[in-house]
Amino acid sequence: MYLEKINSPADLKPLSIEQLKVVSDEIRQVILDKVSKYGGHVGPDLGVVESIVAMHYVFNSPVDKIVFDVSHQSFAHKILTGRREAFINNEISEYTNPLESPHDFFIMGHTSPSVSLCCGLVKGRDLKNESYNVVDMIGDGALSGGEAFEGLDNVSQIGTNMIIVINDNQWAIAENHGGLYGNLKQLRDTKGKCECNYFKALNLDYTYLDEGNDIEKLIAMFQSVKDIDHPIVVHLNTKKGYGYEPAEVHAEKFHYMPPFDLKTGNAFVDMSNVEDYGDLTGKFLLDKMKMNPELITITSATPSVVDFDEATRKEIGKQFMDVGIAEEHAVAFASGLAKSGVKPVYPVFGTFLQRSYDQLSEDLCMQNNPAMLLIYLTGVFGIPDQSHQCFFDIIQLSNIPNMVYLAPVCKEEYMAMLEWGITYNEHPLAIRVPTNGVNSIDMEFDKDYSVLNKYKVMREGTKVAIVAVGSFYQFGESIAKALEEKTGIKATMINPRYLTGVDGDVLDGLTKDHQLVITLEDGISEGGYGEKIASYYGESGMKVKNYGFRKEFVDRFKASELMVANGLTDEVIVNDIMDYLK
Amino acid sequence: MYLEKINSPADLKPLSIEQLKVVSDEIRQVILDKVSKYGGHVGPDLGVVESIVAMHYVFNSPVDKIVFDVSHQSFAHKILTGRREAFINNEISEYTNPLESPHDFFIMGHTSPSVSLCCGLVKGRDLKNESYNVVDMIGDGALSGGEAFEGLDNVSQIGTNMIIVINDNQWAIAENHGGLYGNLKQLRDTKGKCECNYFKALNLDYTYLDEGNDIEKLIAMFQSVKDIDHPIVVHLNTKKGYGYEPAEVHAEKFHYMPPFDLKTGNAFVDMSNVEDYGDLTGKFLLDKMKMNPELITITSATPSVVDFDEATRKEIGKQFMDVGIAEEHAVAFASGLAKSGVKPVYPVFGTFLQRSYDQLSEDLCMQNNPAMLLIYLTGVFGIPDQSHQCFFDIIQLSNIPNMVYLAPVCKEEYMAMLEWGITYNEHPLAIRVPTNGVNSIDMEFDKDYSVLNKYKVMREGTKVAIVAVGSFYQFGESIAKALEEKTGIKATMINPRYLTGVDGDVLDGLTKDHQLVITLEDGISEGGYGEKIASYYGESGMKVKNYGFRKEFVDRFKASELMVANGLTDEVIVNDIMDYLK
Repeated sequence: MYLEKINSPADLKPLSIEQLKVVSDEIRQVILDKVSKYGGHVGPDLGVVESIVAMHYVFNSPVDKIVFDVSHQSFAHKILTGRREAFINNEISEYTNPLESPHDFFIMGHTSPSVSLCCGLVKGRDLKNESYNVVDMIGDGALSGGEAFEGLDNVSQIGTNMIIVINDNQWAIAENHGGLYGNLKQLRDTKGKCECNYFKALNLDYTYLDEGNDIEKLIAMFQSVKDIDHPIVVHLNTKKGYGYEPAEVHAEKFHYMPPFDLKTGNAFVDMSNVEDYGDLTGKFLLDKMKMNPELITITSATPSVVDFDEATRKEIGKQFMDVGIAEEHAVAFASGLAKSGVKPVYPVFGTFLQRSYDQLSEDLCMQNNPAMLLIYLTGVFGIPDQSHQCFFDIIQLSNIPNMVYLAPVCKEEYMAMLEWGITYNEHPLAIRVPTNGVNSIDMEFDKDYSVLNKYKVMREGTKVAIVAVGSFYQFGESIAKALEEKTGIKATMINPRYLTGVDGDVLDGLTKDHQLVITLEDGISEGGYGEKIASYYGESGMKVKNYGFRKEFVDRFKASELMVANGLTDEVIVNDIMDYLK
Repeated sequence: MYLEKINSPADLKPLSIEQLKVVSDEIRQVILDKVSKYGGHVGPDLGVVESIVAMHYVFNSPVDKIVFDVSHQSFAHKILTGRREAFINNEISEYTNPLESPHDFFIMGHTSPSVSLCCGLVKGRDLKNESYNVVDMIGDGALSGGEAFEGLDNVSQIGTNMIIVINDNQWAIAENHGGLYGNLKQLRDTKGKCECNYFKALNLDYTYLDEGNDIEKLIAMFQSVKDIDHPIVVHLNTKKGYGYEPAEVHAEKFHYMPPFDLKTGNAFVDMSNVEDYGDLTGKFLLDKMKMNPELITITSATPSVVDFDEATRKEIGKQFMDVGIAEEHAVAFASGLAKSGVKPVYPVFGTFLQRSYDQLSEDLCMQNNPAMLLIYLTGVFGIPDQSHQCFFDIIQLSNIPNMVYLAPVCKEEYMAMLEWGITYNEHPLAIRVPTNGVNSIDMEFDKDYSVLNKYKVMREGTKVAIVAVGSFYQFGESIAKALEEKTGIKATMINPRYLTGVDGDVLDGLTKDHQLVITLEDGISEGGYGEKIASYYGESGMKVKNYGFRKEFVDRFKASELMVANGLTDEVIVNDIMDYLK
């Protein structure tokens, strides 16, 4: 085994082409062993093993700087730069991180920023009169993001050495969408020769390699562009999932996999019968779209968020549109649809929706067009990685005029809000999809939410009121129970439901027989929902304590541990309450 | 005069070409009379008079829907759609607004969203089985924005009637930047015939008109694409400032003008000797860049923000880069520059920086790269228009981990922060440039701000503390004075300086001899800085009252009136204070 002896890219240099091929095969096996055991990205990484080996053979990392867009395609790079064992043992993240290695330059989990970041490296190098190659590897799926375009459009202005490697595996997370992909296909079909060329239209030099998994040709290609004195696009035709048949055949499924059986390609744990909010929402939308031809679902490269597989997408036909990785477009598109009188629903991961802040404000809310957004994977139970951590959605969405942001506390309330939401026509609406499992609460939930900012008092108590937002409602219940057990105090339980305003009537009412209001939210406290309540009570004698997360980026966290680290446990909070009541 | 008889586009239809030419000349005169009297956009509107007349002659608005990107180019449209007098008398905004006219579909002040919004109209039309033309007019300057790319990339996926008119006047606000503009030039040079074509690369049909100010040819062009069954780009070569020599010659200056003398093209009031923060910053940066070749200034289409005219830009050479309208790129670029070890400074209007929320979070702050941002025209003294209103920057910037956001209260403090900021290397830094005129405060300001979140107690008092943020510091002083006059109470005056955290020591100290803390901020209260203080004091007995603006979009406001409408006057607040102290 060669790989065991490769602890830095320098160890690759003495190897022959044949040996590099063996190394590539070994890397592929390491990747498969690791992701089949722990889960993770599969297809994107298998497709670029050879190109990464060739890059590290030709370039001199870390003097030459290799940057990976949405760096879950960097596994081979991690394996080759002294992190093989840490990778195998799942001790490091899927993304590049300068704290992890001098061969990494940015933490990158969102798509499309790499070209712009590399422009900064290039321009900085030039100002310092230094001399090295800046190499950016960006996947075709990332090219649909506006930031990648803005970056590519600016490269020629800088004009010096920069090598932009387009890893064209013909897929985003799901299949690619957008006119640009037609041009990439033309370029592949003509071996890079067709005159109409997106990259050349942006004033960039361009070269093409059809055999993007052929290590010998890759090396020759990279050698031909090394130390070039101007920017160039190197377009590689690669195969997503290359070398592992299930991933080649089922490219969408194998973009990211839970732990799976290497032999069959099947996940070890069949989750298809476990109810989740993706299923529930998908089924709901399908039913409603069948009844109403003027209802349309939009996704941005993640149709799986509502469990719409390829067959379903075809079945829905015109009432579904995946816009690719283009969240800015998705929000403005939804606004235009609502303006035209149809009803758009845009389910989206919260971490990606922040790419549309300006569009949410200017294109949607300022127009007051009644699109409906469903915000997935927010808070501590969302994606446990710093670049996908979504602790900021309440701050972002709650403070834009006209927006109505709802946080249901259980399945029944979520479904009631959905049902109401698809006919609501007064304001843009967002629903924070619960993340703490599909919980049921056995009570009647309102059918109409059009009178805004009305809290639901779930249970009346005295002395202490617990305002528990969305997925933290069950946590609030648990605190209330612990408090009662310890002190006999029955807390008032409040489900605020609306994150875009406070209910003055309910809050005023509490001043009669409550001394303390605590707020619990599944996001950072600063700038969050609880502070609105603290501000509301500022002039009164009511004590308020806001609970949530500290303002920080946290990588590879476990929800339970992060809650402990932030003092979000029954014990701590019950003790706090007892202190405040003294 | 024909124009007096034209109260809707229908009134254009019976006119001959010669008569339409006269109408165009009359519109041009109306625009010049109005903007020379009241100030406003000049060049963009003069260049599209003929194309808008031709559009309204050919299409049937409002059944056919004409949408204007960054709609300050819509003056001729407003004049032709029953708003001539309101326009002449400056009673309506420069932007389209559905509340103003059935011929308007969106409020649009930021660049680049129109293609995506029109995609929504088109798809909605199709779902409703309706039949009309959707016409988008977008300027070439807007094409560098990522959102425009995302929109264009998605048009072919929809595939039905949509007419995208590119108003190519070869300018953004300043000159255009980016590789794409090379392709537009190639297209103009070859009369639209060169094979390499950005729009065709996005799978769009394309046609070109060289004589973009020739009404007869414009009419023929629009007639040829009317009712087309697929999307098409109509590329018009127009002249910015057409028909008014000073605006043709000085295209950048005449993008937007204060009131000016029509004969000479000179502004009535010479502001060049009035000190402002643009000058001050520009001079500071020029001096520093001369001394330090590793300092670089970035702007995004608004070099005027630091008063860098064309000659200055040339003089600075490599240490300046205008990236065009591409704020996402600008932030990531700045991050990459900081990572490479040089110091980037990015002065930007606050309203536009919100286009980079994701980049601020993921590309800059998560990397903790020490770029410096200067945030202009925030708050009530910023741009008094709903689409440019910047009341949300504190919410956006203050709650991103690692960011340091400073709000100086006067010239001396601003300059001290700038001086310190260009050598600060621990975190990304943003400075909220004051907007209430260049005020001086005669005291020593700190030279070092690296110990974070330390308030400056400007004056010690008792009972009441006034925490006055940035440009509201002078307002705080005025309240304090009124309070003392009325009650004899000398309030403690606090300049919090840091918007990204609270100073627990100072706040705890106040509990000894203060009963009330009021916060004043030049932004919306909800989610704002003051709420952090309310939350901090939540468990204490301290009364807190947060003052700021209501969460709303406000159009064409006067600062003084909006302050009154939000209860932000000495009288109201002094009375409030007296009430709270009872």
